[in-house]
Amino acid sequence: MLQLGIVSELARAVIERCHAIAGFSDHPSNITRLFLGEGMRACHTYLTAWMNSVGMQVDIDAAGNVRGFCPGTDASAGSILIGSHLDSVPNAGAYDGVLGVVLGISLVEGLAERRLPFSIEVIGFSDEEGVRFGVPFIGSRAVIGDLDRETLQIRDRTSMPLERVIRDFGLDPARLRDAVVSSSARAYLEFHIEQGPVLESIGVPLGVVEAILGQSRASLTFIGRANHAGTTPMQLRQDALCAAAEWITHVENAANSTQGLVATVGKLEAKPGASNVVPGEVTASLDVRHAVDSVRTRVIEELLQAAHEIGRRRGLQVESRVVVDQRAVSMDRELTHICERALERAGVRPHRMTSGAGHDAMIVARRLPAAMIFLRSPGGISHHPDETVHEEDITLALRAGIHLLEELSTCPLHT
Amino acid sequence: MLQLGIVSELARAVIERCHAIAGFSDHPSNITRLFLGEGMRACHTYLTAWMNSVGMQVDIDAAGNVRGFCPGTDASAGSILIGSHLDSVPNAGAYDGVLGVVLGISLVEGLAERRLPFSIEVIGFSDEEGVRFGVPFIGSRAVIGDLDRETLQIRDRTSMPLERVIRDFGLDPARLRDAVVSSSARAYLEFHIEQGPVLESIGVPLGVVEAILGQSRASLTFIGRANHAGTTPMQLRQDALCAAAEWITHVENAANSTQGLVATVGKLEAKPGASNVVPGEVTASLDVRHAVDSVRTRVIEELLQAAHEIGRRRGLQVESRVVVDQRAVSMDRELTHICERALERAGVRPHRMTSGAGHDAMIVARRLPAAMIFLRSPGGISHHPDETVHEEDITLALRAGIHLLEELSTCPLHT
Repeated sequence: MLQLGIVSELARAVIERCHAIAGFSDHPSNITRLFLGEGMRACHTYLTAWMNSVGMQVDIDAAGNVRGFCPGTDASAGSILIGSHLDSVPNAGAYDGVLGVVLGISLVEGLAERRLPFSIEVIGFSDEEGVRFGVPFIGSRAVIGDLDRETLQIRDRTSMPLERVIRDFGLDPARLRDAVVSSSARAYLEFHIEQGPVLESIGVPLGVVEAILGQSRASLTFIGRANHAGTTPMQLRQDALCAAAEWITHVENAANSTQGLVATVGKLEAKPGASNVVPGEVTASLDVRHAVDSVRTRVIEELLQAAHEIGRRRGLQVESRVVVDQRAVSMDRELTHICERALERAGVRPHRMTSGAGHDAMIVARRLPAAMIFLRSPGGISHHPDETVHEEDITLALRAGIHLLEELSTCPLHT
Repeated sequence: MLQLGIVSELARAVIERCHAIAGFSDHPSNITRLFLGEGMRACHTYLTAWMNSVGMQVDIDAAGNVRGFCPGTDASAGSILIGSHLDSVPNAGAYDGVLGVVLGISLVEGLAERRLPFSIEVIGFSDEEGVRFGVPFIGSRAVIGDLDRETLQIRDRTSMPLERVIRDFGLDPARLRDAVVSSSARAYLEFHIEQGPVLESIGVPLGVVEAILGQSRASLTFIGRANHAGTTPMQLRQDALCAAAEWITHVENAANSTQGLVATVGKLEAKPGASNVVPGEVTASLDVRHAVDSVRTRVIEELLQAAHEIGRRRGLQVESRVVVDQRAVSMDRELTHICERALERAGVRPHRMTSGAGHDAMIVARRLPAAMIFLRSPGGISHHPDETVHEEDITLALRAGIHLLEELSTCPLHT
């Protein structure tokens, strides 16, 4: 149905477009595109012009999401949403989020004059990273109708409320209800770079996400006693860093022995922090993720208990509290299966995987069948200027996307 | 020979004097008395008046050391030095250093009109902590003639050279040679708080120091790879903190299994230090001390090698360098034995111990037979406003000091 021949050309253009968008930044010398900042406005202008040129109607909704609409031939066939986010972390790469939006529009461009039975809506979410307001997913939450009045009152670092920022951008917060996706929407698809090393390590260009991992975060403090490193014999110490070190090794061993689990102590501070003083206090973070919530909650409980036991045995006090407890989100089984078939038709051995990072698909899945396709991340690098993607993987992603739309045209989802 | 009856009174006065000196500070609300600062000048005035009142001649030498002289009856009997330091760490306690000087003068005061064959010189060293110039022992190095022209050029934080600071205080750096102890000096004695928990843990008020531990310090960097804590499976990580934790546990085990060794990782920094990022780089300090230099150098070598092996096994790079390599210093055997006898006569079971911290005695020992007597540190606390000492331990120290001087009067040292 679609011109597979022009796909390589489209892939090259995808990279050029991602680089063009990388130039729209809030920062003069790196990629920093925050919610409704200057970079985002330029990005809107650019995408609007492009989408108009391929025959799409474009709107910016009240949450600052760019929404491009390509009508179908059969009103009863509803619409398919393809999206990802347009905001970035500070000093970011060119592909995180942006690639998924550009791929969506490119698929529509690839259709040329051809129309499918369903309409296609490409969404560029205004905020997924949560950098400006410390709260992620503002864009996708608006689209599923989950942006409450309370959230509108949160403030950025300059104490500007979210509501005011929306208004100053020229949008109307009172019209947020209009941003909610219509009942005729049938599915949500998201292409995204993996942001991890798995696909590269197994030599596979694309992956199909079956679940986004649930996540627990905890904060721990080991309280021992600071003492002179020269005058305090080993057996009279309550060394908070030795206790923390024993626990970190335990965390690593536990994660290594639990299939699919990742556990990380990313932050650690030892006080007073002098080379000749036995550390009296250590604070540490713990991040635990797994696709099965019961596994995750069992493991975090066991790891915190282990910290307390290590503390007890060493005569230290240990304080711990769980600060994040976020459930795993499964992608739609049927839609995921259709994605796998599309990958096969594109010549890619389908690889099912979990996503350790959160994505807009996680939010949209609360309302619509959602699926995600990952593109291999060279070096596993993301959230970094060196973030990149292979042009041939983009070609394969476009091919898979074309097959996916084709499949959806012929085999309606059971929603 | 001496009035043991007045010793309890003297002990109470010792505490009062230490507290009076605590009021002489460079800081308005805590004890911070640095080399030739405002606090030191007030301290000099106070000690000079007191020493004059008990019949001592007082001089401030060109290195800012206070020197009080009490003549003996026999010029051929030479002199005994009793000293410690008058400077402090920032936000210090009232006894570290000062107690040894006050005890020395109190012993002379206790002699009243009585004269011993040897003269007694009480020295209050101007710098032991090394806070102002980042170089310790300025006072005692001047007394043994080890303050070279190069050291006079080092600068404090305000870029003021040591030589200029001496001059601005009203002293003459050209007269540093006059600060060197005379050839008639026979021995150096130092009373000091233990600054550790050993004496308290065994229920003994005073200890005799047989050696000051040698010390090695090293700096290590574990270089792995920072990665997303959610998207990087355990087996694809090069977690610098997990490597450092494994090594810290190894350091602790090695120290626990080597008699008399202390090893401390006091400083640790994990980068980038975000709860959702696998740590890519960890820098850590290592402090190793032992009375036997060959044990210490063997252990530090083994510990650094272990870090490199852990790194290799985990695919990390490890960099390490030794930044301090300071030999152990033995106290004089005969003088130490005389100290033990004096403790016994004062009713204290003599306990031999090593000092994990450096002291002026370590410097003076290069030139003179030196000995140290430790007073128990309640809670092992030092370098802290809560630092204290039991009045009854001071009484015992004064008694032991009196017996020590008596012993030295009758049994000349074989120097």
